[in-house]
Amino acid sequence: MSELIQPKVLKGFRDFLPRDEIRRALLIETVTNVFRNAGFVPIDTPALEYSEVLLRKSNGETEKQVFRFNDNGGRDIALRFDLTVPFARFIAEHYSELYFPFKRYHIAKVWRGEKPQAGRYREFIQCDFDSVGSDCAYTDFEILKVMYSALKALGVTNFRIHISHRGIFNRFLARLELKDKSEDILRIVDKLAKIGKEEVIKQLSEIAGAEKAEQIVQYSNSFPVGADFETVLAHIESLAGGAAPDTGRLREVYQLLCDAGIAGNFVLDPSITRGLDYYTGIVYETFLTDLPQLGSVCSGGRYDNLTGLYMKDTVSGVGASIGLDRLLAGLEQLGIVSKEAGFIDAVIFYEKGNSIRLNSAAAAYLERNGIRVEVFPEPKKIQQQYGYAEKKGIEWGLFIESSSESAGGDELPVRLKHLPTRTETNLLLKEVPEALKGGKK
Amino acid sequence: MSELIQPKVLKGFRDFLPRDEIRRALLIETVTNVFRNAGFVPIDTPALEYSEVLLRKSNGETEKQVFRFNDNGGRDIALRFDLTVPFARFIAEHYSELYFPFKRYHIAKVWRGEKPQAGRYREFIQCDFDSVGSDCAYTDFEILKVMYSALKALGVTNFRIHISHRGIFNRFLARLELKDKSEDILRIVDKLAKIGKEEVIKQLSEIAGAEKAEQIVQYSNSFPVGADFETVLAHIESLAGGAAPDTGRLREVYQLLCDAGIAGNFVLDPSITRGLDYYTGIVYETFLTDLPQLGSVCSGGRYDNLTGLYMKDTVSGVGASIGLDRLLAGLEQLGIVSKEAGFIDAVIFYEKGNSIRLNSAAAAYLERNGIRVEVFPEPKKIQQQYGYAEKKGIEWGLFIESSSESAGGDELPVRLKHLPTRTETNLLLKEVPEALKGGKK
Repeated sequence: MSELIQPKVLKGFRDFLPRDEIRRALLIETVTNVFRNAGFVPIDTPALEYSEVLLRKSNGETEKQVFRFNDNGGRDIALRFDLTVPFARFIAEHYSELYFPFKRYHIAKVWRGEKPQAGRYREFIQCDFDSVGSDCAYTDFEILKVMYSALKALGVTNFRIHISHRGIFNRFLARLELKDKSEDILRIVDKLAKIGKEEVIKQLSEIAGAEKAEQIVQYSNSFPVGADFETVLAHIESLAGGAAPDTGRLREVYQLLCDAGIAGNFVLDPSITRGLDYYTGIVYETFLTDLPQLGSVCSGGRYDNLTGLYMKDTVSGVGASIGLDRLLAGLEQLGIVSKEAGFIDAVIFYEKGNSIRLNSAAAAYLERNGIRVEVFPEPKKIQQQYGYAEKKGIEWGLFIESSSESAGGDELPVRLKHLPTRTETNLLLKEVPEALKGGKK
Repeated sequence: MSELIQPKVLKGFRDFLPRDEIRRALLIETVTNVFRNAGFVPIDTPALEYSEVLLRKSNGETEKQVFRFNDNGGRDIALRFDLTVPFARFIAEHYSELYFPFKRYHIAKVWRGEKPQAGRYREFIQCDFDSVGSDCAYTDFEILKVMYSALKALGVTNFRIHISHRGIFNRFLARLELKDKSEDILRIVDKLAKIGKEEVIKQLSEIAGAEKAEQIVQYSNSFPVGADFETVLAHIESLAGGAAPDTGRLREVYQLLCDAGIAGNFVLDPSITRGLDYYTGIVYETFLTDLPQLGSVCSGGRYDNLTGLYMKDTVSGVGASIGLDRLLAGLEQLGIVSKEAGFIDAVIFYEKGNSIRLNSAAAAYLERNGIRVEVFPEPKKIQQQYGYAEKKGIEWGLFIESSSESAGGDELPVRLKHLPTRTETNLLLKEVPEALKGGKK
């Protein structure tokens, strides 16, 4: 016999056992329903693409992290590291087949060879939704509303979506004659919540001088988070040089949020920048109020040239990405995700001397009556069967009295066991559906 | 401006546009529900694994097809080419954390560098479900019942699941003193439906001689497909040397199928072999009666040593794999999958002069009343808006009369347009939910 291979996964990669995979699947199903109900439709793209397609725009950091290799045909290919670049390629390639605004969601794995650390994996699922081909207030509002609805659907009540606008900030930087340094400035301001005001001023001073550093922080950080939307907007509007289409857009979006009765979950927070120079309009991040340290669980913004690498026409869009791993961790900390999500109501145990045909027929009867049931297939030790049910989060057990002759008959005597309390009740098979439905309440 | 990159996918890879991705997603959701209702739970494993873990057992053919490379840390890694090998590794790695029988489903992408041709892709989704850790008739039956239920849930009525048993066939080959040639023989018999009886006899003769070739074909092909189960079983039982646990098992499984009232969709077909020497017990393939040329849409069987490469304990299991691409093609040919599956009931069109706030409020009212609605965000040409709705398979359009002052009021006058017929009705907003629910019937 040859030597055994050690069964192990690569560093930074994960197996998902049922308990965790069920939670992740249910979370994905919940947000998928929200997307669909808002008219977003799914697409899929390959995990592998030409490296040229994926990496042209990337900086050195991305290049280092990507899984890139030559295939057997000598093609230079790579695993996608996000869903945005493939989406841009997709829009350009299928432009004439699509309709606009094109509202899509895409929930799929991406791969990055990052240094594995707490909360950082080399394989993870991204959950993106975007509306492209329309540059108007309603579309901005629509993405924000979907974000709001997704969190509500997941059972989260205390959250705030922090909004800002890159166009206004850019106008402000232009007034300070700092437009050419905007990328560095964005990156520093983005760290405000993390490293604090003093450190941000210090870092900004090195680039922009002390006076302008002070002004930038005044723009970003003059009001407490949660201050009245219009007050903050008037402040940054005046710093940026007055009213313009960007501030008008932001007012219009806020009006729609108010009309929809959901404005209470949104704040104008000029410290939000979303680092990347890709964004040009509204930008946003989402925080769970009870877990301020968790970081944003859903972020995004508007961009004005999604497909620039692949086609001449510019395509504007707006979108967001839900951080599934982080959000799931947050929901668990908040006790919102149940620890034992299962799909089955009851298991029919197999006592020595039972008839598998009788058990199977009883299961069929219960299924026809809306009970999700499974049959334990062999007469193993009863403690092992209980353990099986408990590990799967099944609440009810059934013993079918095998002395009965009426296989499949609904008059079959059974013992119903409530597993968490180990209490048993004697009843007839036909009484079980009602008993379980009562117990579920 | 730098040169544009041609937006294109790799040969053998596919984008899925919404129409196709929706169909695939709905198919997956339907079978997922069947799996869950039968007590199967999901797992996930990484797309990338150590090459040693994936490839030890593989033959040269697999090796050539796999996407294998060294990562930035110099590890020899590969993309999974199926879900069975990672499942075996998973069971061995997590053996002590699991419960048995462990019933899992796994629906995920796999990659093979095959020569692209009709129906063959380098990236495709596998859909596997297995029950491991239990070797008994009920578990065999359970997998068959899930296969049956999945096809029924998809709306397929005319299908037959062809069953055979590798243990009986092996006994028969042992009697012919051909056990050492069984792999080659299996592969040839497997082609019976494709290349015909004469050619099979010819190829078998080269290995086993003319007389034994004739006997093998008598074993595999003596009765028309669909002949009485017990008649065929008695025939192969006698050729294999009489009753034994293998024939007993098959009788027991068939009995359970009869009890469940679903035996009519199952036939005993001794020509089914499933090529691979991995299988040791019951094996099966599934054919759509109205599309005999399509090939099997769901196949599998029982194996007695899933984890042999990774641990000393042997783990028996039984499972099946649904060929999603093929099944979807079949459903389309049969007209079972609707051509325009959408998620939205109605779109609110945007006529020049309309108020987006009014349209948004009307949408919110309809949503609260159970209508899945989206708002067209900009006053584009009305034909373009119709095209949008039609491409998304949306049946109803709405125009909100902007002259009304009562924003959000349910007395708002609206025009409801049935898009396929272009007929319009004038009514009040509050009458729309009822009208659409009536129209859906």
